[in-house]
Amino acid sequence: MGTLSVFLDVPLAPSTDIPLDAYKADPSSLKVCLGHADTDEVWIPPVVKRILLQIPEDPTLNHEYLPELGILEFTTAAMKLVIGKESRALLDNRVMALTYTKLHPKYSDLLFSITTKEDKNTQIFFLFSENLGCIFQVAGFTDIRTYRYWNPERLTVDTVSFLMELQSAPKGSIVFLHAPEEISLTPKQWKQVSTVMAERHLFPFFDVPAQGLASGNLDRDAWAVRHFVDRGFEILCAQSFSRIFGLYDERIGNLIVVTKNNQTLIKILSQLAKQISVTWLGPTSLGARVISMVLTSPALLYEWKQSLKALVKRIMLVREKLKEKLRILGTPGSWEHLTAQSGVYSFIGLLPSQVEFLAKEKHIYLLSNGQINICSINAKNLDYVAQSIHEAIMSTSHQDQSVTVRIYSSPTHVSKSESFY
Amino acid sequence: MGTLSVFLDVPLAPSTDIPLDAYKADPSSLKVCLGHADTDEVWIPPVVKRILLQIPEDPTLNHEYLPELGILEFTTAAMKLVIGKESRALLDNRVMALTYTKLHPKYSDLLFSITTKEDKNTQIFFLFSENLGCIFQVAGFTDIRTYRYWNPERLTVDTVSFLMELQSAPKGSIVFLHAPEEISLTPKQWKQVSTVMAERHLFPFFDVPAQGLASGNLDRDAWAVRHFVDRGFEILCAQSFSRIFGLYDERIGNLIVVTKNNQTLIKILSQLAKQISVTWLGPTSLGARVISMVLTSPALLYEWKQSLKALVKRIMLVREKLKEKLRILGTPGSWEHLTAQSGVYSFIGLLPSQVEFLAKEKHIYLLSNGQINICSINAKNLDYVAQSIHEAIMSTSHQDQSVTVRIYSSPTHVSKSESFY
Repeated sequence: MGTLSVFLDVPLAPSTDIPLDAYKADPSSLKVCLGHADTDEVWIPPVVKRILLQIPEDPTLNHEYLPELGILEFTTAAMKLVIGKESRALLDNRVMALTYTKLHPKYSDLLFSITTKEDKNTQIFFLFSENLGCIFQVAGFTDIRTYRYWNPERLTVDTVSFLMELQSAPKGSIVFLHAPEEISLTPKQWKQVSTVMAERHLFPFFDVPAQGLASGNLDRDAWAVRHFVDRGFEILCAQSFSRIFGLYDERIGNLIVVTKNNQTLIKILSQLAKQISVTWLGPTSLGARVISMVLTSPALLYEWKQSLKALVKRIMLVREKLKEKLRILGTPGSWEHLTAQSGVYSFIGLLPSQVEFLAKEKHIYLLSNGQINICSINAKNLDYVAQSIHEAIMSTSHQDQSVTVRIYSSPTHVSKSESFY
Repeated sequence: MGTLSVFLDVPLAPSTDIPLDAYKADPSSLKVCLGHADTDEVWIPPVVKRILLQIPEDPTLNHEYLPELGILEFTTAAMKLVIGKESRALLDNRVMALTYTKLHPKYSDLLFSITTKEDKNTQIFFLFSENLGCIFQVAGFTDIRTYRYWNPERLTVDTVSFLMELQSAPKGSIVFLHAPEEISLTPKQWKQVSTVMAERHLFPFFDVPAQGLASGNLDRDAWAVRHFVDRGFEILCAQSFSRIFGLYDERIGNLIVVTKNNQTLIKILSQLAKQISVTWLGPTSLGARVISMVLTSPALLYEWKQSLKALVKRIMLVREKLKEKLRILGTPGSWEHLTAQSGVYSFIGLLPSQVEFLAKEKHIYLLSNGQINICSINAKNLDYVAQSIHEAIMSTSHQDQSVTVRIYSSPTHVSKSESFY
């Protein structure tokens, strides 16, 4: 055997921006990781915990392969949660869902395999999300752009820019829409978006990462998706259950397909089943079983909804307390966005240099784009976190007095030649 | 909104060759599905059942995201099972494993991303396996071929043809090796294979679908992989746990990487971690937890090994009984291959027309290539299955008297232009 490795030219990959490693390595007792909830505090609904105990005791549940598209009971119940039980598309048999391992790169391939644009030159537009860009890049899409959505000065959605981007997008482009995001559009704004998208023949691909966690109301958070379906759009919708069921390690998601008619749907599903049968064969079972048990039992569903509402209430309380602390400290700038936004994750609005200050001087770790997990703030660390944010802002304000308004990690335009890696 | 679907040109995919659907639809009380064990009889080791009950009770196990490469305890224990605890590569820190959802199409992308052959024109050789071909085709490999391995007349491995194929393969080709297959090579034959592969600089990618189920001995079934590692080969090895732990619905597997030196290994793992972080983020947890508990506890490991041995014994007993029944019935041809082969799956050696006869006349369903799951034969259906196979062979022998020897679904050469779909 030769001694030269065939992998000789493989370079070391740059390490990813995950503050958790730095947090773990820090010996300080003051340390806080704002990127992640403390593992002791990971939220899981009590009903989910109970079902996790019951499932292994159930002799009717074996460990055989699942069907390619997943457990029908689960995909149906989950799809109804987003689309709504009374949806016209549902009554017309124009909607179905299939289970995929969450963020599975192949769903982007599937998307492509069922469209007729085989050269993958269709433009795809994203809200700021490096990971999503990568997924479609890995699938072979070459023209991937992010759209302008955020006004960093007014700290609100920049609907005008967003609509202009849509108006200038090539006809037939796929637009990835996040519903609900932390900073959601109003129904009126969504209607403007759908009108432009209909005119430009733009294809909506919805991402529903945590239905219910924005408003505490499942129906309200699904408003945008249902609006597009009601207007007659064909859509794809990637639905995740990690956050709302506290089952991050189950990687469970659904891909919902809504078409113009039932015959088209059957053809698409046959293609998807074929692709799945020759690639990943079928999904895992545990997460799907837990979730379908909750969604199909009125009593368990009620209990889960109550848990969701309680979590949303707790998140809003933390947001309010943090805002109040910063107000009392006299921290420069408006902190209204803390309570104007909702959901678990939040762009707190810190400069990268301020994030660095927090890590170096205060043992507080978060992503360099300033995104934090609200659940990582608790009664024990609230005062320390607020005081530290205050000091971080004061420390940099003398360097650049113009920075009185914090800048979000605003969407950047990624050109064809730029790589997401 | 227009009324035309963007999916207008999507054709209906041909249905896959899965006899289970036909079996389910058949109302006959005589029906048998030889492609699949009856769901009531899916084998699961008692120790696995017990651990599945314990895990939800364990307060130290939460449902957070796992690290990108999986649980280190699991990947290490699983990798040692194949490579061997005393392996030189292990002592030199030249081997590591990462968890992937089994048959995950991305591991083929990963394979490519860590080699330097970026144009994907490297030839890949397979033993007859449509699914594996598809996985690499989906990943973008264009030159995918199957190799000659089987002598349909003598019903044995055709080592001469196999070695000739390897000798004529382009230097640097990737060869997918199945170890152990149902009809394994002897150590002497493996040594010939590794010698040719070293001369031709062929890269071995091992598939270990069910270590222990061929011989009942975990070490014996890993002999080939260890031999290549001992000879100094760099290898990739896809390790599955579905069959040997009875956890088909967990889709749990490991990708083992052995390199020339530790520095290269670190670089490769950094690339893999990066790719995973931007695509599927991390694996699922339950299967990995169950298996690592078994593999790292001497008592549980002993119990699991005993279960494996008992299963292998039962499989051999069924093979012997079926052979004996066919001998008594005077069924034409030699049935020695039934006991010369081992493992759960077996190419029984029937023509497609005989498979069709069994389905139409006898309510017995199996794949058209004649592959059956030995565990689907039991005391209740053995006589009926043997009698039916006998009749199937008699029914076609008058049509073509020359077919006294049954032909396996022998490997066919797939040229560049042919599609696996």
